[in-house]
Amino acid sequence: MSVIYDRVALIGLGLIASSMFWAIKRAGLAREVTGYARSAETRVIAREIGLCDRVCDSAAEAADGADLVVLCVPVGAMGAVAAEIAPKLMPGATLTDVGSVKRAVIDAVKPHVPPMVHFIPAHPLAGTEQSGPRSGFAELFDNRFCIVVPQKGTPEDEVQRLERFWQGLGSFTERMEVDHHDLVLAVTSHTPHLIAYTMVGVADDLRRVTDSEVVRYSAAGFRDFTRIAASDPTMWRDVFLNNKAATLEILGRFTEELFALQRAIRRGDGEHLHAYFTRTREIRRGIIEAGQDTDAPNFGRHPEKAR
Amino acid sequence: MSVIYDRVALIGLGLIASSMFWAIKRAGLAREVTGYARSAETRVIAREIGLCDRVCDSAAEAADGADLVVLCVPVGAMGAVAAEIAPKLMPGATLTDVGSVKRAVIDAVKPHVPPMVHFIPAHPLAGTEQSGPRSGFAELFDNRFCIVVPQKGTPEDEVQRLERFWQGLGSFTERMEVDHHDLVLAVTSHTPHLIAYTMVGVADDLRRVTDSEVVRYSAAGFRDFTRIAASDPTMWRDVFLNNKAATLEILGRFTEELFALQRAIRRGDGEHLHAYFTRTREIRRGIIEAGQDTDAPNFGRHPEKAR
Repeated sequence: MSVIYDRVALIGLGLIASSMFWAIKRAGLAREVTGYARSAETRVIAREIGLCDRVCDSAAEAADGADLVVLCVPVGAMGAVAAEIAPKLMPGATLTDVGSVKRAVIDAVKPHVPPMVHFIPAHPLAGTEQSGPRSGFAELFDNRFCIVVPQKGTPEDEVQRLERFWQGLGSFTERMEVDHHDLVLAVTSHTPHLIAYTMVGVADDLRRVTDSEVVRYSAAGFRDFTRIAASDPTMWRDVFLNNKAATLEILGRFTEELFALQRAIRRGDGEHLHAYFTRTREIRRGIIEAGQDTDAPNFGRHPEKAR
Repeated sequence: MSVIYDRVALIGLGLIASSMFWAIKRAGLAREVTGYARSAETRVIAREIGLCDRVCDSAAEAADGADLVVLCVPVGAMGAVAAEIAPKLMPGATLTDVGSVKRAVIDAVKPHVPPMVHFIPAHPLAGTEQSGPRSGFAELFDNRFCIVVPQKGTPEDEVQRLERFWQGLGSFTERMEVDHHDLVLAVTSHTPHLIAYTMVGVADDLRRVTDSEVVRYSAAGFRDFTRIAASDPTMWRDVFLNNKAATLEILGRFTEELFALQRAIRRGDGEHLHAYFTRTREIRRGIIEAGQDTDAPNFGRHPEKAR
């Protein structure tokens, strides 16, 4: 692998940016990587652990002279950051982001993008339930998909350059239309997160079952929900506020379907339940065959320590 | 560890029974283990892989002369199996089960239990998304909880004997009152399964997003739901039909809470969302501290093969 962008600026130093840094270094995709985080504490940690070749004290300083600027902040903060760095963006530079929502980010960022800068929104479909500058690792994007959402008028070779960069980070790239992206993600990510948050909240709130019971008996299924319900609250607040329409649409379909199953339970309609549960097995098989999950039982969890 | 029951009979040879067999052998908890499965194919596989010391061609034959008979069939089949084996149960023997629901199993089994037999319902909180005679492994119950639901009049030393047996299989044992068991499991297992089935069904059914998109982009959260939605359909149909009241109660709480979050999204109430998402992180921390899940990011999933 060789250098694709001379200088890359990472704005925001959480899970995604820190993983990008280690993956850039692994593959030698840039000569220099600058970084900026709003929190002074995060900048201190970044300097301490060698995250970024140069940690800057402002977003504008980090972006100054970069060939590729990556916005890695929560979706709700993208617009303000874009406004701040705009004056420093070099002609010919590419501005991209890693936001989980694309329509709202484009609406917020685009007005600030100078004419000679290529704005190419993107979204790597990778993450863990952990967050912060210490949570990153070089393998995060390996065999995951990165969706690129090119805008009209962007030169094809600059889009391909960004795609080569993401491939260098370990990902497969796919192009998608902006609203379709937001709908697909509402199904595969946003609604599942909201449902997991809800289920964990209900369990926590129930007076007749103690938290300690929920915790002790969680291996019966509940614990699978708690992983994504432990994800970064700010990031997820912003996702839901900025992908309202698609999330509410899928939630509507979800409750409709849930009510149908609820009715089958109430009426004792075992056939309906059995047919439904048989169908859902197939989807998991597809995910495993596509290499998007492990086929080891229990996600290959290792035996945990005794209490 | 030494022999706790001279002869153990496993009725039904799926994930739980096959794991029990290997764990019994690992610890030497019985002198002989007999087994029976309704399906002739399962009995052939069992004989082939050495599952059980003796595979019988009827449940009654397997139970004949056993000190401990374990009903490992779907909840809806427990009553019929109990009726079938009742005439062969030895005076002084213990009859137990591994059903995920306790009130319905007790109602179905108890009428058939001969006077000198100790009926001690139990429920090991362990499982994987896989099923069948080949899916078992000796470590399944290690550090998991087994809930014992003793009935009035059962001698304390026979309850303790069954608890020692489960401890020998690797589990912690806890006693619980029958209706409380069914409520706790509705929260920690039954409702989460129903919700996971629903979410996977919705994704599969959505015309505007293809199955292949759902599969490819599942790593963004969705795939966590698919594991438990791949569980055995017959077992789960029976669970919902036999724990109606508690499951419907928790589902009611769930939809109430989901509607509140849905409303917060619609109204753009970021504070409500953020506070909710912050609270749910704590529960996961508790589960990890209790040794009921791994603290490795992404459940410690190993990098998957490329597509």
